[in-house]
Amino acid sequence: MTVDVQAVLAGNRLALSRLLSQVENDTLAGQHALVQLFPHGGKAALIGVTGAPGTGKSSLVNQIAYHFRHPEDGRPARRVAVVAVDPSSPFSGGAVLGDRIRMSALTGDEGVFIRSMASRGSLGGLARTTAGVVQAFDAAGFEVILIETVGAGQAEVDIARLAHTTLVVEAPGLGDDIQAIKAGILEIADILVVNKADRPGVEQTERALRNMLQLAHPGRRDFEGVTISGGGESEPIWLTPIQRTVATEGDGVPELLKLIDAHRAHLEETGDLARRERARLTVEVNLLVESSLVADWRAGISNGQYEEVLGMVFERRLSPRQAAEVLIHGEEAS
Amino acid sequence: MTVDVQAVLAGNRLALSRLLSQVENDTLAGQHALVQLFPHGGKAALIGVTGAPGTGKSSLVNQIAYHFRHPEDGRPARRVAVVAVDPSSPFSGGAVLGDRIRMSALTGDEGVFIRSMASRGSLGGLARTTAGVVQAFDAAGFEVILIETVGAGQAEVDIARLAHTTLVVEAPGLGDDIQAIKAGILEIADILVVNKADRPGVEQTERALRNMLQLAHPGRRDFEGVTISGGGESEPIWLTPIQRTVATEGDGVPELLKLIDAHRAHLEETGDLARRERARLTVEVNLLVESSLVADWRAGISNGQYEEVLGMVFERRLSPRQAAEVLIHGEEAS
Repeated sequence: MTVDVQAVLAGNRLALSRLLSQVENDTLAGQHALVQLFPHGGKAALIGVTGAPGTGKSSLVNQIAYHFRHPEDGRPARRVAVVAVDPSSPFSGGAVLGDRIRMSALTGDEGVFIRSMASRGSLGGLARTTAGVVQAFDAAGFEVILIETVGAGQAEVDIARLAHTTLVVEAPGLGDDIQAIKAGILEIADILVVNKADRPGVEQTERALRNMLQLAHPGRRDFEGVTISGGGESEPIWLTPIQRTVATEGDGVPELLKLIDAHRAHLEETGDLARRERARLTVEVNLLVESSLVADWRAGISNGQYEEVLGMVFERRLSPRQAAEVLIHGEEAS
Repeated sequence: MTVDVQAVLAGNRLALSRLLSQVENDTLAGQHALVQLFPHGGKAALIGVTGAPGTGKSSLVNQIAYHFRHPEDGRPARRVAVVAVDPSSPFSGGAVLGDRIRMSALTGDEGVFIRSMASRGSLGGLARTTAGVVQAFDAAGFEVILIETVGAGQAEVDIARLAHTTLVVEAPGLGDDIQAIKAGILEIADILVVNKADRPGVEQTERALRNMLQLAHPGRRDFEGVTISGGGESEPIWLTPIQRTVATEGDGVPELLKLIDAHRAHLEETGDLARRERARLTVEVNLLVESSLVADWRAGISNGQYEEVLGMVFERRLSPRQAAEVLIHGEEAS
């Protein structure tokens, strides 16, 4: 099946949908189409949304999409794509997330495109495929691309690296230990969201987050989400703001959009956008190099050889590292 | 620094500790030591323990270790190693998990060795290093190796594949949606543990798990954790049991150990142990092949070349895939 690149560029949804399937399945047609589309991209704002299960991320993403479509501040509506990635369902094989409730206010809106993706193999594979899907949306003219990941592990951190602006979502009362709020996750957050802010314990959650931010930036003061001068000749720095939301009601979402735009402006002003874009594309290239190297190697070795060497490992006549040496170089390591 | 392989085999804790550091840092000395140690391994029972944050996994692992040291069923005490892996702390750089509370009953016990690991780079790297640490404990004569992962994402699934028996830990009241209990995670569970079983909602959690198991095995009956004949000539099958525990009190832990031993007996009886061991070692070999391929490639390319090609991607003159082709084969894809 070929992909109609011109139709994708012209905004044809069916052509885009077909392209996405080709990209997800990593077909040659999908790969060729992405090569042709790549020069047309680079304009979209890429926004990662991550956080633990139970924080209401999906509802929040729906609301963010809705408010980009129906802005309250007089800005023009923006075209929004949502890529919902679930790395913890490696066995589902399907692409529909059970917990994603479609928002009726978004259905039928031609300016919104939602795509759910499940992991079909390795994590590297999922990050690679997500990058391809983002490229496709970008070239197709979506101005905002929301990359939502379910969970809060390393996989989500890796996928967050595909974004320019990363939102980390928390909620009150999610378990009783500090595990729910990971220092590592905080370090990737450009904006912290305390969702379900109408629940008891919201002050406590916000205080815990604020303390962790204080630890990370000991000199921080009370104004946040604004670009301030770091003193002297240093560049303006971004102080991670905390925004309360109640996604089910839409409360706090217009304010969240203002913070997202402020972060974008900060990235552009400081040159950080170029640095992040470069880091992002470096990750993409590295993922593709890795998968190509493995594919080339696998094509050069017979199943018989492979199984024979594995058999020797199983009998403990070769260690895994010796086996890897034999499989790559045809001889044992010394 | 060299590693004293003979001292590790003789049970010297200091030599083992040094070896583990070499393995974690993937040094040549560590690699060579693992090659020498590999023929001495293959005897340990490898038990993976995974589950979402807030389930009390670390306390449970402590209790399992304690009960293997102080068995109630008259079996001899077994030597226990714990590998606690935290893939969601890529930035910490350290190896100490903040949430791991050392159990005073375990300290000073020479038959217990606890090692915490944080991710220092790619997930593949972490799985590879964990495999190496497990090999070291195995060769050093630890009879039970508990591999604990913090979180419940793809990373944890990948690490669970390094074990023979996988425990998935749940707890009542962890968020209000089904996300906390992942179908994908259930599929890797050999034993389900409902920890914090003294809390309200335990029946509800157990019922939800039972329903998901029923969906996975429509014909299942009410006896669990026992090897039953599948009817006719088919092999005995294992029905995933659900065990309630209160890790803080030790309640249910002796019963859990019985289930762990029963699963091991099942694996041995059916030949599944050999199949799992083979799958496990295949994963290890593949991880090493991948990292070697990437290292060889990286050694063959100069930083100047690499940066030049990335610069062309950044200017959108090359797509990421074209860049990968150039970086591997020295020429552009057609």
